[in-house]
Amino acid sequence: MTDASLFAEKLIAAPSVTPATGEVFDVLEAMLSPLGFEVHRFACGEAPDGPVENLFAIRRGPEGSKHFAFAGHVDVVPPGDGWTSAPFAPERRGELLYGRGAVDMKGAIAAMIAAVAEVPRDAGTISFIVTGDEEGPAVHGTRALIDFMREHGHRPDLCLVGEPTSVHRLGDMMKIGRRGSVNIWLEVEGTQGHVAYPHNADNPIPKLVAILAELDALVLDEGTEWFQPSNLEITDLDVGNPAHNVIPAKATARISIRFNDRHTGASLSEKVGAIAAKHGGTALPIISGEPFLTPPGEFSQMIADAVEAETGLVPEASTSGGTSDARFLRAVCPVIEFGLCNATMHKRDEAVALADLDALGRIYARIAAAALGKR
Amino acid sequence: MTDASLFAEKLIAAPSVTPATGEVFDVLEAMLSPLGFEVHRFACGEAPDGPVENLFAIRRGPEGSKHFAFAGHVDVVPPGDGWTSAPFAPERRGELLYGRGAVDMKGAIAAMIAAVAEVPRDAGTISFIVTGDEEGPAVHGTRALIDFMREHGHRPDLCLVGEPTSVHRLGDMMKIGRRGSVNIWLEVEGTQGHVAYPHNADNPIPKLVAILAELDALVLDEGTEWFQPSNLEITDLDVGNPAHNVIPAKATARISIRFNDRHTGASLSEKVGAIAAKHGGTALPIISGEPFLTPPGEFSQMIADAVEAETGLVPEASTSGGTSDARFLRAVCPVIEFGLCNATMHKRDEAVALADLDALGRIYARIAAAALGKR
Repeated sequence: MTDASLFAEKLIAAPSVTPATGEVFDVLEAMLSPLGFEVHRFACGEAPDGPVENLFAIRRGPEGSKHFAFAGHVDVVPPGDGWTSAPFAPERRGELLYGRGAVDMKGAIAAMIAAVAEVPRDAGTISFIVTGDEEGPAVHGTRALIDFMREHGHRPDLCLVGEPTSVHRLGDMMKIGRRGSVNIWLEVEGTQGHVAYPHNADNPIPKLVAILAELDALVLDEGTEWFQPSNLEITDLDVGNPAHNVIPAKATARISIRFNDRHTGASLSEKVGAIAAKHGGTALPIISGEPFLTPPGEFSQMIADAVEAETGLVPEASTSGGTSDARFLRAVCPVIEFGLCNATMHKRDEAVALADLDALGRIYARIAAAALGKR
Repeated sequence: MTDASLFAEKLIAAPSVTPATGEVFDVLEAMLSPLGFEVHRFACGEAPDGPVENLFAIRRGPEGSKHFAFAGHVDVVPPGDGWTSAPFAPERRGELLYGRGAVDMKGAIAAMIAAVAEVPRDAGTISFIVTGDEEGPAVHGTRALIDFMREHGHRPDLCLVGEPTSVHRLGDMMKIGRRGSVNIWLEVEGTQGHVAYPHNADNPIPKLVAILAELDALVLDEGTEWFQPSNLEITDLDVGNPAHNVIPAKATARISIRFNDRHTGASLSEKVGAIAAKHGGTALPIISGEPFLTPPGEFSQMIADAVEAETGLVPEASTSGGTSDARFLRAVCPVIEFGLCNATMHKRDEAVALADLDALGRIYARIAAAALGKR
């Protein structure tokens, strides 16, 4: 099967730095339509976070058949400098295909398309949930697609997200969950003054230090069966006071918490807010995503079986790493992520092994068939 | 006596923002020479801290007589905007004389000159130690004057610095000492990484927080008979990390310690450095000045008597406030500071009461006479 690599080349050749619109979706639509998919495209949002283009495509199976969804994105992170070949001019060198998005995740989208060509139409309903904003703010991307699906009564039974979850070899890891993420801005206000007359000032920095020391000492949890322990990192400090003899009026910090399903963004925001308030500060949380978990079971076993059949590997069921759009799709149906090796994602000279593209297409075909009940 | 206010007007009319050179020293020399002073002027340093002009003037008394020194500066801080009258065009309005330097401290220099006109030449040796860089880095100012004096064998027995030490009324406070000052830059280096993979990174911020928490909890001392407790303020924090999902590679902070004579800049630098090192950080101290104390005794009594005779007030012997060039002059002889009311110093519409200028001239004349043993 070489369809996957041909599809991948065509997708890579359409530049699509977040937020992606237009050409890359034209290319995608031109691949899906001949396979019998009904393609819906719509744009959402305004500058600077938009407009974002989204695509929902569906190929209906017989009445009463199951509905399996492939989900992903065609936007890519900016290429940066120093590429050996042009990032949006796909180039095969040896056994690799180079180009921005090769693994994250135009390669996976290509493998999905190659896969559905192998699944008989009467096996069941297959859909594609593809956004042009997964790498950006993700405000008008997959969330808008879920709204669209709800409005039109499309509800998959299972969903596979094609993020590059493999680490060393294709098939060594799938993600059955992801931690949640919240960033919290901390601020303490004081009263500016001269260091020689501290009684006339109120230094906000020791209060901020007390908040941060208490936050740093927190043990949020010890981890769960499927999640590593939740983790809090202090990511920034700022006062911006160039005057050596001046006590500043304000001190700020920012923390980032990656948390498992023992917490919610709201529960952590409340906890941090209480600690800040105790020391005279304030906390402003922005929740990027809640944790999700699709506990190991039938769906993960389908994926493991498909991976093992093609690669001989049994994928580890992991919840590590950053967030993905699976955090939104979890509200629709059980969702698991599986895709290419992530070693070069977001890097210069992003590349995928041509053999992996073909193997991934076969794995996706097996998963789709299993999910639709035609194993 | 109106000489003091006339001298003050002439000095104010010569613009002399730090580092001062040229005209203002010409004006000063033209006042001192007719009074029998041998005037030595010399420039030191290079841009940006220089060149700085300094003036040492001496009127020798009879062989074996005592030597009393007036010390001060003719540079001024930048005027800023919003003055009612031009800052370098002295203007009398009502009972006040307005102009940059009116109280800090061209007014005091004027009063010193008016005073020496009243002290007979045979009373003893009088000198003027006047720099053009007290408000700036002070690297090439009074320190260079002290070097000059040492080289030429001039060693005063007592020295009065004319900084504006009075608070509410002329005569309510003199400074018999000043705290020392040290600024220390703290730095912790770590390893940058993604917040989702903290095991691959080494966050420097918690270490910096631990250093700062320990420093903030330090009790340096409880104060002494003449000094308030030493005080440590955290004056800046900086990481400068705009990326929410990135653990930064470096975190820095700055502290400022004002300390009494229980410590030295070196002893505090060592203490802070040890705390920083314990948590994996480094400390770079810059000592601005060591503390000085001229314990209450004969010299402070001379000043108190002179002040009381002219104002009816007994000046409080204080060690409060910032640093002054007395921190250098202490190495030469006992030094005390006494001068005008400091309410308007460094501010817009800096002004001195004309009556205070005259009274200060009389007070300085009494102090000089007493110091020379001709009361």
